[in-house]
Amino acid sequence: MPTGYDQVRPLRWENDALLMLDQRLLPGEERWLELRDADGVADAIRAMAVRGAPAIGIAAAYGAVLAAREAGGDWAHLSSALDRLGAARPTAVNLEWALQHMRALAERTAAGEWFRAMLAEAHALHEADVEANRRMGELGGTLIEGGAVLTHCNTGSLATGGYGTALGVIRSAWGEGRITKVYADETRPWLQGARLTAWELVRDGIPVTLLCEGAAASLLAGGEVGWVVVGADRIAANGDVANKIGTYGLAVLARHHGVRFMVVAPTSTVDMRTASGADIPIEVRAEDEVLHFNGKPVAADGARGWNPVFDVTPAGLIDAIVTEAGIVEQPDLAGMSQLFGAR
Amino acid sequence: MPTGYDQVRPLRWENDALLMLDQRLLPGEERWLELRDADGVADAIRAMAVRGAPAIGIAAAYGAVLAAREAGGDWAHLSSALDRLGAARPTAVNLEWALQHMRALAERTAAGEWFRAMLAEAHALHEADVEANRRMGELGGTLIEGGAVLTHCNTGSLATGGYGTALGVIRSAWGEGRITKVYADETRPWLQGARLTAWELVRDGIPVTLLCEGAAASLLAGGEVGWVVVGADRIAANGDVANKIGTYGLAVLARHHGVRFMVVAPTSTVDMRTASGADIPIEVRAEDEVLHFNGKPVAADGARGWNPVFDVTPAGLIDAIVTEAGIVEQPDLAGMSQLFGAR
Repeated sequence: MPTGYDQVRPLRWENDALLMLDQRLLPGEERWLELRDADGVADAIRAMAVRGAPAIGIAAAYGAVLAAREAGGDWAHLSSALDRLGAARPTAVNLEWALQHMRALAERTAAGEWFRAMLAEAHALHEADVEANRRMGELGGTLIEGGAVLTHCNTGSLATGGYGTALGVIRSAWGEGRITKVYADETRPWLQGARLTAWELVRDGIPVTLLCEGAAASLLAGGEVGWVVVGADRIAANGDVANKIGTYGLAVLARHHGVRFMVVAPTSTVDMRTASGADIPIEVRAEDEVLHFNGKPVAADGARGWNPVFDVTPAGLIDAIVTEAGIVEQPDLAGMSQLFGAR
Repeated sequence: MPTGYDQVRPLRWENDALLMLDQRLLPGEERWLELRDADGVADAIRAMAVRGAPAIGIAAAYGAVLAAREAGGDWAHLSSALDRLGAARPTAVNLEWALQHMRALAERTAAGEWFRAMLAEAHALHEADVEANRRMGELGGTLIEGGAVLTHCNTGSLATGGYGTALGVIRSAWGEGRITKVYADETRPWLQGARLTAWELVRDGIPVTLLCEGAAASLLAGGEVGWVVVGADRIAANGDVANKIGTYGLAVLARHHGVRFMVVAPTSTVDMRTASGADIPIEVRAEDEVLHFNGKPVAADGARGWNPVFDVTPAGLIDAIVTEAGIVEQPDLAGMSQLFGAR
């Protein structure tokens, strides 16, 4: 059970259904979606009721369990449901990873046992994710030696099975008194920082100060921040990192100001088959997400919008990649291969 | 009268009142405030019904005209009304400049002539601002040799007497076919880019594509943008520039990507008595502007916000400062003194 600075879980399996906290409604409302079929899970992932690469992976694993029940032993049915789950979001490697894992399990399991075996596996993946996050929190927390931190987007309990990646490091370091203050980018256009990171930190009793992305350069120039700590949606073999739009700019600004830059992600985010960031597909979402806010237009009719969801931070701007398997400092292909070569 | 790519004016004097387009309601609604006393103008400036350093200066000049009428020849009354106008916003030097100009005029004018003389002067300042903007547009436009441009905040007709500073350069260069595409930061937390820049460019028939500040680094990395073009709220003697929060970050990102960086502002923005950016007071506004959007909370109760309105871009990151008096390339104290030493 969650304890201390860790009160939030975004996904629960209850009464043979996946309960998913609808993150689109936070912080105003806590509504749980009850998902009883795999396509409903795919729709919820696509519509961003759940977001964050690890949480998407876990949701997809539970979606696969629902697909197994629907398939009733029909491999073609199961396989096509897994394909639809996999197509819900293009950038997060955890989604693909979780589904490949579940598919492999189904292949080696008697059809009559799919549901039971896959549910046990989904639970195991979920628990392993939380454990990995706690381990990352310990490892990454030791790198922080005082000062304030700046984070981006939401990489917390809501973005994972629980505890969080970058926010797990912040939780851990905060608990050990290694952090003086937590700053969070509001993270346009979805405002995950304002809506989600602030919500879960407030619930855990960790004070948080939000800023607009445009203020980050001034903050870093002020000298208060020692580390920028972010998550990752995919990490390439050379250490390039795809993460929420705005991450790359923060990395450039951090380097310019001598602030260190930490990426925290589970090993399931590391994709050694992708050579570099240039090979990572970047999702560009509808321009309406930039042109509207809370359903109301903020821009004049006739204006266009450009809405890339992720960007790529070159490894050369990263001081440390923290995973549950260890830390790669000053990441490059050699350092990544040493830790992840067997993957 | 406005012609071509120049259809918008934010301030008009009619029937002995200042008509001010309430920019807080754009782009949804075009409502004109009818201001008949100086304190009403000060309130409108403070509440950001008008914003943009040159437009604030012109609004204050008209406010001084209203103060002259209210004063009825009483110098103490006039002087204290001018003081209140001057205190409405702390960072824009144009406000102080316009009021000192009007105060000096009153000092050398018979009290019975204050209203007539100051109204003529306010009209002259307004017209001179538009003329200066056209001149800056011509000068700055010649620096652009194709490619896309990225701008920040609103520096257009709405931010000035008309035509605009940075947006005037973009208008001019667009008219001459020197720009392939105009990108505009949405500019949180007030969304001046989305609400104002997009509105006036659409009205003028210039296509505009909005992006969130977090996407700027990816845009600049893409190689499409040749120049970042921004305005200024105050320029120090060494060429340091105070401008809307987010400008400094853009300058760091532009330099990192080999994109050139242009600041466009009238000479009234240049403050040779301020040695460097470190001496410019930076307004920090209420945290609610970060924590709320359109009157609705976007962050959890208990979260704090940090809301600096301006930042300082060191001269070393600026390729050109464009004024109506000429261009200072690679600005420093020597270059600034050569053009502005007599000020």
